[in-house]
Amino acid sequence: MSDPTNPSFDVAHLGHVELYTDRFDESLDFFTRIYGLKLSGTDGQSAYLSAWDDYEFHTLKLTRHHSTGVGHVAYRVSSPEALERRIDAISASGFKTLGWVDGDLGHGRAYRFEDPFGHVFEIYWETRRYEPDEADRPALKNLASRYHGQGCAPRRLDHLNLLAADVREFRRFMETCLGSRVTEMIQLDNGRIGGAWFTVNNKGYDLACTEEHGRGHGRFHHVTYATDTREDILRAADIFLENGVHIETGPHKHAIQGTFFLYVYEPAGNRVELANAGARLILAPDWEPIVWTETERKKGQAWGLKTIETFHTYGTPPVPKGGS
Amino acid sequence: MSDPTNPSFDVAHLGHVELYTDRFDESLDFFTRIYGLKLSGTDGQSAYLSAWDDYEFHTLKLTRHHSTGVGHVAYRVSSPEALERRIDAISASGFKTLGWVDGDLGHGRAYRFEDPFGHVFEIYWETRRYEPDEADRPALKNLASRYHGQGCAPRRLDHLNLLAADVREFRRFMETCLGSRVTEMIQLDNGRIGGAWFTVNNKGYDLACTEEHGRGHGRFHHVTYATDTREDILRAADIFLENGVHIETGPHKHAIQGTFFLYVYEPAGNRVELANAGARLILAPDWEPIVWTETERKKGQAWGLKTIETFHTYGTPPVPKGGS
Amino acid sequence: MSDPTNPSFDVAHLGHVELYTDRFDESLDFFTRIYGLKLSGTDGQSAYLSAWDDYEFHTLKLTRHHSTGVGHVAYRVSSPEALERRIDAISASGFKTLGWVDGDLGHGRAYRFEDPFGHVFEIYWETRRYEPDEADRPALKNLASRYHGQGCAPRRLDHLNLLAADVREFRRFMETCLGSRVTEMIQLDNGRIGGAWFTVNNKGYDLACTEEHGRGHGRFHHVTYATDTREDILRAADIFLENGVHIETGPHKHAIQGTFFLYVYEPAGNRVELANAGARLILAPDWEPIVWTETERKKGQAWGLKTIETFHTYGTPPVPKGGS
Amino acid sequence: MSDPTNPSFDVAHLGHVELYTDRFDESLDFFTRIYGLKLSGTDGQSAYLSAWDDYEFHTLKLTRHHSTGVGHVAYRVSSPEALERRIDAISASGFKTLGWVDGDLGHGRAYRFEDPFGHVFEIYWETRRYEPDEADRPALKNLASRYHGQGCAPRRLDHLNLLAADVREFRRFMETCLGSRVTEMIQLDNGRIGGAWFTVNNKGYDLACTEEHGRGHGRFHHVTYATDTREDILRAADIFLENGVHIETGPHKHAIQGTFFLYVYEPAGNRVELANAGARLILAPDWEPIVWTETERKKGQAWGLKTIETFHTYGTPPVPKGGS
Repeated sequence: MSDPTNPSFDVAHLGHVELYTDRFDESLDFFTRIYGLKLSGTDGQSAYLSAWDDYEFHTLKLTRHHSTGVGHVAYRVSSPEALERRIDAISASGFKTLGWVDGDLGHGRAYRFEDPFGHVFEIYWETRRYEPDEADRPALKNLASRYHGQGCAPRRLDHLNLLAADVREFRRFMETCLGSRVTEMIQLDNGRIGGAWFTVNNKGYDLACTEEHGRGHGRFHHVTYATDTREDILRAADIFLENGVHIETGPHKHAIQGTFFLYVYEPAGNRVELANAGARLILAPDWEPIVWTETERKKGQAWGLKTIETFHTYGTPPVPKGGS
Repeated sequence: MSDPTNPSFDVAHLGHVELYTDRFDESLDFFTRIYGLKLSGTDGQSAYLSAWDDYEFHTLKLTRHHSTGVGHVAYRVSSPEALERRIDAISASGFKTLGWVDGDLGHGRAYRFEDPFGHVFEIYWETRRYEPDEADRPALKNLASRYHGQGCAPRRLDHLNLLAADVREFRRFMETCLGSRVTEMIQLDNGRIGGAWFTVNNKGYDLACTEEHGRGHGRFHHVTYATDTREDILRAADIFLENGVHIETGPHKHAIQGTFFLYVYEPAGNRVELANAGARLILAPDWEPIVWTETERKKGQAWGLKTIETFHTYGTPPVPKGGS
Repeated sequence: MSDPTNPSFDVAHLGHVELYTDRFDESLDFFTRIYGLKLSGTDGQSAYLSAWDDYEFHTLKLTRHHSTGVGHVAYRVSSPEALERRIDAISASGFKTLGWVDGDLGHGRAYRFEDPFGHVFEIYWETRRYEPDEADRPALKNLASRYHGQGCAPRRLDHLNLLAADVREFRRFMETCLGSRVTEMIQLDNGRIGGAWFTVNNKGYDLACTEEHGRGHGRFHHVTYATDTREDILRAADIFLENGVHIETGPHKHAIQGTFFLYVYEPAGNRVELANAGARLILAPDWEPIVWTETERKKGQAWGLKTIETFHTYGTPPVPKGGS
Repeated sequence: MSDPTNPSFDVAHLGHVELYTDRFDESLDFFTRIYGLKLSGTDGQSAYLSAWDDYEFHTLKLTRHHSTGVGHVAYRVSSPEALERRIDAISASGFKTLGWVDGDLGHGRAYRFEDPFGHVFEIYWETRRYEPDEADRPALKNLASRYHGQGCAPRRLDHLNLLAADVREFRRFMETCLGSRVTEMIQLDNGRIGGAWFTVNNKGYDLACTEEHGRGHGRFHHVTYATDTREDILRAADIFLENGVHIETGPHKHAIQGTFFLYVYEPAGNRVELANAGARLILAPDWEPIVWTETERKKGQAWGLKTIETFHTYGTPPVPKGGS
């Protein structure tokens, strides 16, 4: 896959997601005490959070804002040379470029660009590894930090989901700019693509894009961390229940990607997922996208659960009145 | 990672392992009925087996032989061009080359070469996908075949472990020929490397090599399939128990790589593992090998289980009398 | 609890359930190959089935019939003297008695009686233990038979659920005739009892009764076997999915009793459940029934799943046209 | 079982265990923060602890002492009348009686007696239910308190294990005084009983007694809380590992009783277990004790793990020098 025509491996992995919240303190309490991320640091407007086995300083940047939704999405590249190649490809693509930013507490300079639907992306090479202090040092040296067992305690960042008015065009953006590939997708009867699941590596997906059904722009559907087991997710359901967190749907298994899932809303209203993919990986270098028809999608989730209506309509930030 | 100096992604994944057995019928019964692989096909000397979500025709080739151990180890490359690049690198390496073979029921032509310790490797591009028939068609189209639930029913091939008299030299072989990288290793007090864990992709490892303590040559330690959950492995322990399969050690968790494991001997004596890595992946493109000292290794497994003595001494084929 | 006024322990446990099927061969195939019970024996009209750790010859009697639903419900008493005491109490109760029957392949003579809603009950002391043959002998002698791993492979009979037009009166029947106690119940706003969960021992419930909303009489809601783990139930969902079994609802967790559940229909249409209660037991001898209000019940299941409509309406046998 | 000759059900369940510690603060920190019990209250010398679904005020009484081991063992009876019957039986038994004590923070007056090996028992009827305050109120009203998710967070008290020089005599004590029955036992080749597992209800065991191999008197082997799942125990192993708690053995499955187990030492040295029995219950009123021979016992645990030597020798308090 290192051919110039198939530059997938220039981009190593999803690095972090910036989430906006208009209830910063409550959101931070949710993400640390209940959801179980660690607070790596803070600056003026943001808290930097990571799961206990995320190797970087942060994988979630939680930022005070007048509303909710996603600030930016960051991917780490696989080398300085790969960064150059990607910038060349992005510059040549015709998609909107925003140029360099200095980085923040968690990484060095990053190159920003934007999809046609208002989501800001960045790619970066220079990162800051999470350095555990004494209290945080794991018993086993191959972990990024100790398993703290606080809250749901997922292991690492897994993926995010964005909304776009034209998934086909979003796909072109992902393939062109990030060398990402589609592993599964929904082909609607009207010829449109209902959703597409992308990956830059062996994970089944690190980003999903589903069709925006409101009049929203640049909206966010959810961000997801991975747990080691499905049992972690069943346990998380009890933790959410006991803490009064709104459970939207799950635990259940997605037909698409086969992920065991649980969706909740954090206090500011952003949708957050916990997921477990089992041992599934996309190992085939010539994997052909799985195409689900509208009829197949209507069967619901893997074990027959009807997809909850809000899953098709709810995103952040909310759409202004009369907008959806 | 697509730089010429870091050609890792030329090789996509471990493809299959050929295992020798001098009790073919019993081994085949074990691997299908108890361990839970599917029989994809047979030819004169071999049975071709795969797990229910392996995308290729086979990941285990079980071959009648006068003894036990490994026949060959195969990796699939990521493109026809990558195959050429790898052959160039192997040819230039000075390691022994064996040239092209025609392939078998499961894949097209393959290029063979050998490590200095007598293990035969091959790389190939042209493969045969597993094509489920009606009875084997999965309910969800993103699976390679239906979840049959027979025996332990692991999901996919995970890794194998070879024995070598000089792990350092074996490492040079893996890096040079396959562009594989070391994710974890054991540094012995005597300066030798006690073991090394290699990967060509985002898995923690697809091949491990540990030091040969007998006088064996080209010996095999174990082959492993991955399960979706740890519970699958606890359940497998009961299945092995009820079927009179020798459980060598486990279920427990390795300190190295953090894998939840269970080791048994198949009827001919080859060691076979079931393993679950949870959500662990090696995502960092600049991952530095974790180096375990001899002292650390002596602490045993993750939760304190002392490593069973046979784990250090037993491999296949057996070493001739006076040899160990 | 051995006081004459509180004779609970005269009845030891739910013994077996007789289920009617008008698709005998398909039902038998479902219960053995997919659901994972063992066939202990057959006579002219019935198959006798048990789970791998049921100690008796059978816990499910599957009987050819012109329709579906429950044939009879059997409880085993704790001693011959307890049997006498229970018969005295039943005779004095005014509930309908049917007298002695000879028993069948699985147990000796039994005393039959009937609830006001047409369900036949029996109590018995003399039983036939399941005697494993060589192929069925467990590796561990404290199990009733070997863990066979076939299909869903639940461990033991757990409970059943009946429909009755007047749950309050059904409760009087259970308390009077079986010395059963209510552990949880639903108090409707209209003063009626929506459902009650009964036990004769430390299990949270061995029989539930919910209100009949159709015009059915003597109808059956479901029968349930217990699995050792919740993971067994997640795995069962995949087995049902792959075998085309209709999954009605689940996996999820009931608010009432906290049971992790999965409901399917066997081929003749009877509802069948798999359930796991975790470590929950009713140990308090003075346990007060938990009373759920109608408002609380409307919140749905434990993690927010709305109770599926068929759960309130569907039972077997089907109600004749115009009847529901 | 309510016959005078088989008075089992007079005693309802194991109520609580008093544990001595000479490192009170460290032990209390262990039991609350790491093991995951709740602190219900304290008095001068003791802390009263319970698991999140224990219905009584406490199930563990942790008492400051000059040494370690067990203070007393308490069973709750099933009615005031049952209490009288049991006292009559104990008084008539010839075993040592200690008479009434006033009770403590967790229950009313209790009647004490002693086994021939120095362990103090008590039985009581009047208890104090755990009353959750606002912060502790469960989302589901059928739980004793909210699932807090702190530390290992077991669900309820399960059993304890005592050491006795003559297990046969200890059995006579348990049967006579508590109406307890043996569900499994070890018959040694020398005619002695190596161990016996007792229950007063449907649990497989609530108390085990194994042979004292040191010269100890009144010694304690371990106390155990039950988790809902085996996964809870695997997770607990990581929590113990990260907190520097000594893991003695496990996770693994006992052959006897089939319990999935994990043993650690709390800071003062008392052995503590977490266990899961799956769906296993002793439902048969005429259950015959399973008798394991010495040969069978030597096979080790269910999946072949050799029983760790300390398991046969280590108890608390420690035996004075020269004593073992």
